[in-house]
Amino acid sequence: MPAPPEFLDWVDKNANTFIRRLKTAVEIPSVSGDASRRKDVVRMANFLNEELKAVGVTTQLIPLGTQEIEGETLDLPPAIVGRIGNDKNKKTILVYGHFDVQPAFKSDGWDTEPFELVHDEATGRLIGRGASDDKGPVLGWVNVLQWHRENGKELPVNLRCCFEGMEESGSEGLDELVLRESKPGGWFDGVDAVCISDNYWLNTRTPALTYGLRGLSYYKVTVSGPGRDLHSGVFGRTVYEPMTDLISIMSRLVDNRGNILIPGVEDQVSIADDDEKKIYAGLDYSIQDVEEAAGGKIALSSDKVEVLMGRMRHPSLSLHGIEGAFSGVGAKTVIPGKVSGKFSIRLVPPQTPESVDPLVVKYIEEQFKTLDTKSTLEIECLHGGKPWVADHNHWNFEAAKRATWSVYKKLPDLTREGGSIPVTLTFAESLGVNVLLLPMGRGDDGAHSTNEKLDKSNYLEGTKLLGTYLYEVAT
Amino acid sequence: MPAPPEFLDWVDKNANTFIRRLKTAVEIPSVSGDASRRKDVVRMANFLNEELKAVGVTTQLIPLGTQEIEGETLDLPPAIVGRIGNDKNKKTILVYGHFDVQPAFKSDGWDTEPFELVHDEATGRLIGRGASDDKGPVLGWVNVLQWHRENGKELPVNLRCCFEGMEESGSEGLDELVLRESKPGGWFDGVDAVCISDNYWLNTRTPALTYGLRGLSYYKVTVSGPGRDLHSGVFGRTVYEPMTDLISIMSRLVDNRGNILIPGVEDQVSIADDDEKKIYAGLDYSIQDVEEAAGGKIALSSDKVEVLMGRMRHPSLSLHGIEGAFSGVGAKTVIPGKVSGKFSIRLVPPQTPESVDPLVVKYIEEQFKTLDTKSTLEIECLHGGKPWVADHNHWNFEAAKRATWSVYKKLPDLTREGGSIPVTLTFAESLGVNVLLLPMGRGDDGAHSTNEKLDKSNYLEGTKLLGTYLYEVAT
Repeated sequence: MPAPPEFLDWVDKNANTFIRRLKTAVEIPSVSGDASRRKDVVRMANFLNEELKAVGVTTQLIPLGTQEIEGETLDLPPAIVGRIGNDKNKKTILVYGHFDVQPAFKSDGWDTEPFELVHDEATGRLIGRGASDDKGPVLGWVNVLQWHRENGKELPVNLRCCFEGMEESGSEGLDELVLRESKPGGWFDGVDAVCISDNYWLNTRTPALTYGLRGLSYYKVTVSGPGRDLHSGVFGRTVYEPMTDLISIMSRLVDNRGNILIPGVEDQVSIADDDEKKIYAGLDYSIQDVEEAAGGKIALSSDKVEVLMGRMRHPSLSLHGIEGAFSGVGAKTVIPGKVSGKFSIRLVPPQTPESVDPLVVKYIEEQFKTLDTKSTLEIECLHGGKPWVADHNHWNFEAAKRATWSVYKKLPDLTREGGSIPVTLTFAESLGVNVLLLPMGRGDDGAHSTNEKLDKSNYLEGTKLLGTYLYEVAT
Repeated sequence: MPAPPEFLDWVDKNANTFIRRLKTAVEIPSVSGDASRRKDVVRMANFLNEELKAVGVTTQLIPLGTQEIEGETLDLPPAIVGRIGNDKNKKTILVYGHFDVQPAFKSDGWDTEPFELVHDEATGRLIGRGASDDKGPVLGWVNVLQWHRENGKELPVNLRCCFEGMEESGSEGLDELVLRESKPGGWFDGVDAVCISDNYWLNTRTPALTYGLRGLSYYKVTVSGPGRDLHSGVFGRTVYEPMTDLISIMSRLVDNRGNILIPGVEDQVSIADDDEKKIYAGLDYSIQDVEEAAGGKIALSSDKVEVLMGRMRHPSLSLHGIEGAFSGVGAKTVIPGKVSGKFSIRLVPPQTPESVDPLVVKYIEEQFKTLDTKSTLEIECLHGGKPWVADHNHWNFEAAKRATWSVYKKLPDLTREGGSIPVTLTFAESLGVNVLLLPMGRGDDGAHSTNEKLDKSNYLEGTKLLGTYLYEVAT
């Protein structure tokens, strides 16, 4: 059924309320990957929990145990589970989001302070870390519920929610929670479908529904030798330098066309036939879109289908950086004593971390052996998640298509995504139900990057979309 | 002539005074390579200037102009010139040192706060950034002068001094000063010889005099493409990634045996004959020394002569790190938008930055072309200095040999050094006189590294050595 017109009007009139809500959230630097920010992640959990309770959600903060970071034992931030309604005549929908964010420093190249929400009136952008990934979408649900609460309206579905604070750091602890709460009597018992709003349109024009995600395996390759950093004048050409060996290994992982050089990794994936290529040819997408979003004329190909397949149905390997080497400005003449190269592989079906990790470890060990060095090697798989593909003709997707048409007067692009939300697969497998990804933001939002933003129009129309989806999926 | 015995006694009795002096100096984080620390470099200049004036030196703080750092114009820290005496019957000796230091953070792996001087009574070590490089030696001269001042003793030579605050950042501005002050009427007019205490013994046992230094060319290779950092899920395998190209270039510069792969660079240097090899064979040095100092069993060879020649008479290339890539702990899934690889080459005669830089630029440009990438390349030569070799039979060296025998009852190793002190050559060429390097610290002091230290005994005996040298060189 369509959403009540009064709800849609109300969203337009309450933009400032929603922006203030997002502003408060962005100001909490809930960086899950930085141990020193853990208290902020917990603060963010508490803030969101209060917001949810205020709009009528029965909630519980669930402790997820501890993790080891650099030899330190740290409490994981709690997850928030919640519910509204238990009507056997209604469908039960579980919504998921996360309230932690990627690291951000102004010195990374931000034009504004990353942990302040800047509303650029000229462009209509709401700029700040987490605006689009994923605080905006999470608060979109809160906005929807606020209207129902304030106007005494019952929801058209039974709602369950699950918000976590470790998504940007491998969703540690969440799998166990989802498995446990999916069982009879658990918070997620009886869920009919899942809706996750934590990704992006393909471009800046056309709404999208997403039915596939790449998985991820993240690696840390550490090369060491000296007991400490050394002076390059005193030690240069007298000792094996870990950086030389690490750079050599990192240069053997991927070529600059994106081809993964680790034997067996590419072979696990099928070759696209003409029918599959037609799907990609039909999407509202151009090379210009990718280059505008990337901010440079750097697409790997001028063939749209090839570029889209590179993102959606091929694995990719990116070199992220080196921990322990000189990374500051200026000219430091150091031989770093211990360096850790970081890279990750985005996985596609049928790849899994379990099928790819051994190939990576074996290859690096073999390559390292060819170096015949006195340095030592350690390879760690920091975290991983399987890829996922869903049925995009399911009633859950059909409802989202109708909701998109209703709000945007456009049919959504049906996409697979290059990114990874490992918990998607956990929900699909634990609950045995369809999972829909219903993005709020645009392809140029800059999640994980500098100057992350959410367009104000996407925040407002996105709030309408989430609300309308609940009505469309109800019937 | 020998130094007065009362001076030597006085040094032993005033250890605590000297250590307090060094403690005050180490507590000023005078990091010349960090723009935000510039005020501390200036503070250190003022501290040292006051110390010099208090022991009777007529000084002047000389402004050196400005520098550009990351688009910001910054005043260079002043240099300190000074003089005691103008007796035509005495030799005039110029001493040089520097009061700036390398960057240091506890998180680099220091066991103690780098900018606090820790006196480890068990090992006799004075631990802190700059303790050995070069605040200890500079204050050694102050200690010597303090005795003469307090006891109304005239120096056996006319003393000139030159202390700078940019040595760790290419000695910017100093060449012009030295050239200017070497002319008639300048502060350094009439100097007969130069003594620099800014390097280390070869080992931990035998004092050394150094008659050669490697030069340095420092390079920054920047690869860019995207307008900003990108999400590796969204953009992985759709765009050319700057890190892939940069790592590929960095892997082609040097092999892990230390061989420089840039055509022409090694060819500039002569091959050692048997006579030259005998010099290295005679030095008090073992593979165990280098491995103890490096803190690992990582020597490039088990042949002492080969390892010593690698340090003293061959060029070396070290990869220092990457600016702009992910360098933190944890797992950030970023495609860095712009990355700058840093490396440097230590040069030996007859190499100069002018002869090597074009080979490096040409090679990297050629290699980059083979990558056939849409990324763009920029190569900068950040700073450079020529190598230097002096006559170690000159009376300046003979005086230092007698002083070493007198203090340590050992003949010094005559060494060439792997490091670079570009101003050495400027003094030699501007003044046309012999330059002696008279080190105070040991080979395991960890200059430029974590846990930098100066042994208390080296600080005290080194103070005696500097004082005794002034007497021995006088006659």
